[in-house]
Amino acid sequence: MQTLPTFDLVLFGGTGDLAMRKLLPALYRRTCAGQVCADTRIIGAARSDLSREQYLAQVKSNCEAHLDGEFNERMWESFARCVDYCKVDAGEDLDYAALSRLLEGREDHVRIFFMSTAPNLFALICEGLARHSLVTSASRVVLEKPLGEDLVSSRQINERVGTAFREPQIFRIDHYLGKETVQNLLALRFGNMLFEPLWRRGRVRHVQITLAEDVGVERRAQFYDQTGALRDMVQNHLLQLLCIIAMEPPATANPDAMRDEKLKVLHALRPLAGNDARNNTVRGQYKAGAIAGQPVIGYLDEKDVPPNSVTETFVALKVEIDSWRWAGVPFYLRTGKRLQEKQSEIVVTFEDVPHALYERPEQLHSLNRLVIQLQPEEGITLNVLAKSPGEGMRLRPAELSLDFAEYFNGQRLDGYERLLTDIINGNLTLFMRRDELDAAWAWIDPIREAWQQYEERPKAYIAGTWGPAAASSLIVRDGFVWRNEL
Amino acid sequence: MQTLPTFDLVLFGGTGDLAMRKLLPALYRRTCAGQVCADTRIIGAARSDLSREQYLAQVKSNCEAHLDGEFNERMWESFARCVDYCKVDAGEDLDYAALSRLLEGREDHVRIFFMSTAPNLFALICEGLARHSLVTSASRVVLEKPLGEDLVSSRQINERVGTAFREPQIFRIDHYLGKETVQNLLALRFGNMLFEPLWRRGRVRHVQITLAEDVGVERRAQFYDQTGALRDMVQNHLLQLLCIIAMEPPATANPDAMRDEKLKVLHALRPLAGNDARNNTVRGQYKAGAIAGQPVIGYLDEKDVPPNSVTETFVALKVEIDSWRWAGVPFYLRTGKRLQEKQSEIVVTFEDVPHALYERPEQLHSLNRLVIQLQPEEGITLNVLAKSPGEGMRLRPAELSLDFAEYFNGQRLDGYERLLTDIINGNLTLFMRRDELDAAWAWIDPIREAWQQYEERPKAYIAGTWGPAAASSLIVRDGFVWRNEL
Repeated sequence: MQTLPTFDLVLFGGTGDLAMRKLLPALYRRTCAGQVCADTRIIGAARSDLSREQYLAQVKSNCEAHLDGEFNERMWESFARCVDYCKVDAGEDLDYAALSRLLEGREDHVRIFFMSTAPNLFALICEGLARHSLVTSASRVVLEKPLGEDLVSSRQINERVGTAFREPQIFRIDHYLGKETVQNLLALRFGNMLFEPLWRRGRVRHVQITLAEDVGVERRAQFYDQTGALRDMVQNHLLQLLCIIAMEPPATANPDAMRDEKLKVLHALRPLAGNDARNNTVRGQYKAGAIAGQPVIGYLDEKDVPPNSVTETFVALKVEIDSWRWAGVPFYLRTGKRLQEKQSEIVVTFEDVPHALYERPEQLHSLNRLVIQLQPEEGITLNVLAKSPGEGMRLRPAELSLDFAEYFNGQRLDGYERLLTDIINGNLTLFMRRDELDAAWAWIDPIREAWQQYEERPKAYIAGTWGPAAASSLIVRDGFVWRNEL
Repeated sequence: MQTLPTFDLVLFGGTGDLAMRKLLPALYRRTCAGQVCADTRIIGAARSDLSREQYLAQVKSNCEAHLDGEFNERMWESFARCVDYCKVDAGEDLDYAALSRLLEGREDHVRIFFMSTAPNLFALICEGLARHSLVTSASRVVLEKPLGEDLVSSRQINERVGTAFREPQIFRIDHYLGKETVQNLLALRFGNMLFEPLWRRGRVRHVQITLAEDVGVERRAQFYDQTGALRDMVQNHLLQLLCIIAMEPPATANPDAMRDEKLKVLHALRPLAGNDARNNTVRGQYKAGAIAGQPVIGYLDEKDVPPNSVTETFVALKVEIDSWRWAGVPFYLRTGKRLQEKQSEIVVTFEDVPHALYERPEQLHSLNRLVIQLQPEEGITLNVLAKSPGEGMRLRPAELSLDFAEYFNGQRLDGYERLLTDIINGNLTLFMRRDELDAAWAWIDPIREAWQQYEERPKAYIAGTWGPAAASSLIVRDGFVWRNEL
């Protein structure tokens, strides 16, 4: 891998969870890989009044904890030399001045402002940076979700960020797009002739995208209760994955060519408003249950959750795309907390043979499927029917697998490592453009409005199951089942 | 697996190579698997004057040699009880009378006459069997290749065999069709929707079928020199594999429905006569060289080969199928002795993407291929381009594999075991019908006539290479290469 250009990375929220668990360990690993120049600066910025030494101690213990076997003292020394800390209160001009002094004379370097803070600070910080002339032409800003809570608030944030940064400087991150398997899906679709003739109505029967978590709301209850699964997961991750599956082949791999095609998918989503939203979505909220044999409490009993909350911790949707390629092919999306296991996958189920020649298993098991597994392991598998060994000609399920463990041979980048190198290199392909965000919110908002209008409570589901029964019915009524129910 | 019906199998050529190396060990293995009833009879028939004990001793030592780990004394006892021997000279009426006495009172059982003799005896034996009323309504005859040496002689054999047996009683064996991978190719094509849209002109760029042997003529020189690779391998094995690849989906798995479709392919082969044969075929003959580091002599120095022989030990052909599905898609076939390694495979190469988005390897390496490996190991692999691990979006070759070793889990049947159980069960699907044989010869004969007409010697190739350079040119001039030259 190539050495990255010298960069200055200012990590707002530098003492926070994402920075400590993901971003700093990712940068440490890239340093170990020899990609980070010695004069690179990584500056943690947060409200706490910490010395550089205190901050380094925090970073070190987190790197040790999250990289176990990979951590070594010598590489740490080399990484630590790049790391600094700057106290920054988003509203405090003096703090920006201090930050400015740290970056003085380094205007020629790639400069990255990574917003790993509460989203209501994004605009405030950007305005502060602009006011203190910290935004150079080589500057980039990275925005973590959530970007607003609806179309109006999202637009407000983007307007204000847009006064400090031009659109090509803005990297809206979706870590699912950093996964090797998601990019491999693009590679398989657009690098091979095999999939194109299959990738359309008449060949694809339906598509499922599942992002299932076994964890509950953890320490995010206050935020989560105001957000819910629809806005926390569907508006960004699920719709982005849907776009990757459904997009037309772009003319080039140029970021805007890719994002234009994703935008077209978002615009072609059939609106779910009013009764359509009621019929094609299922909201759920977990009750007490058990995960892997351990009892867990219900959502309403979680700390910081109001006892009468109607926030959904699960959502399933049936989505249709009104385009020549996809008309009539249902896309089923679901995501939830406290489900049976952590499992994220995209399942493309193909049409059955028009006429069966050979003895074969029950119909639903016999369908050809391409399974793109994102979590817990990454992998791509093509489910086919092959001949049962021995005499006669009976069919039985078999798998053609792309073996990622072998294939990667240790060269794997985790999602954040990949996305950070893209940001440093200035590659916008895997980041959401503002119009994509607008289109996603414009499609999401009517669903929430419909939910409010009907005033129904989310359907209860036992923690450790696959969500409310209605989520099964949503797909079973069309003659299909979720893959975990096969 | 189900128990086979009680059967009587008379093995003409019962002391020969095929019987000892393949057929009897195959029957022994089926006995071990519990499929062979105790009152089954397996009668070796040959000209030698052997006692049952002498014959059993021969069979035993061969089973031990060819089944190494699998042989055990207890199973042998049980198998040996089924085995008998009968001296039969094909022209000797008294011998048929003796055979008749052995089979007396067993007219209700499936009765199989397996012709593992010189082909010039097939008709003579069949007539002898008929004359002594040994052919019951439950009788079957199995004919091993070669069936004639051209259309005329093949017809003569089939006419004479046809006076003793009706066509549905005649099993013309092609052991390549007994391979699990070949049947899996049918299962994949007709049991899955994935392959149908790809399986045609515009999607398939070309097809290669290679049946490469590293051995020389061995002890068959006398026969081989009168036959040559075209008649020994192409007329039967290569054309049958081509039919399996190219056939339309039949309406049922019924043997005649399958064979009707194969016949249509043979009829659609573009004739290679005169100058077309000269331009689209390459004949070769091996000279001294080395296989796996061991020196080997040339064909003309082999025992029993005339020093001026023009018999081809290698042949490569470019074949076209004039049908809606395949017009314009070249099929390259080749087979030879003393090639670099034993390797039999079918390679379906798909069209390239119409427009490349991502950085990728050199074009010929980047094409999608389905590789059906028949020898030395069986396996099915789909070659695709996937994303190189790490940053950026560069494509590199990857494989989706059907892992046969794991998939079969020890339940594997070798080609002859499979075909023998089909014969005993009366399933004709994998056997050639007379009209297929006629069509194959009708297409092969003009090639030989053209070769004779042009009076060119076969092109020399060094033993241990992949045949004459002209065989590479045959495919390179169309812009492709053999897979081993990739």
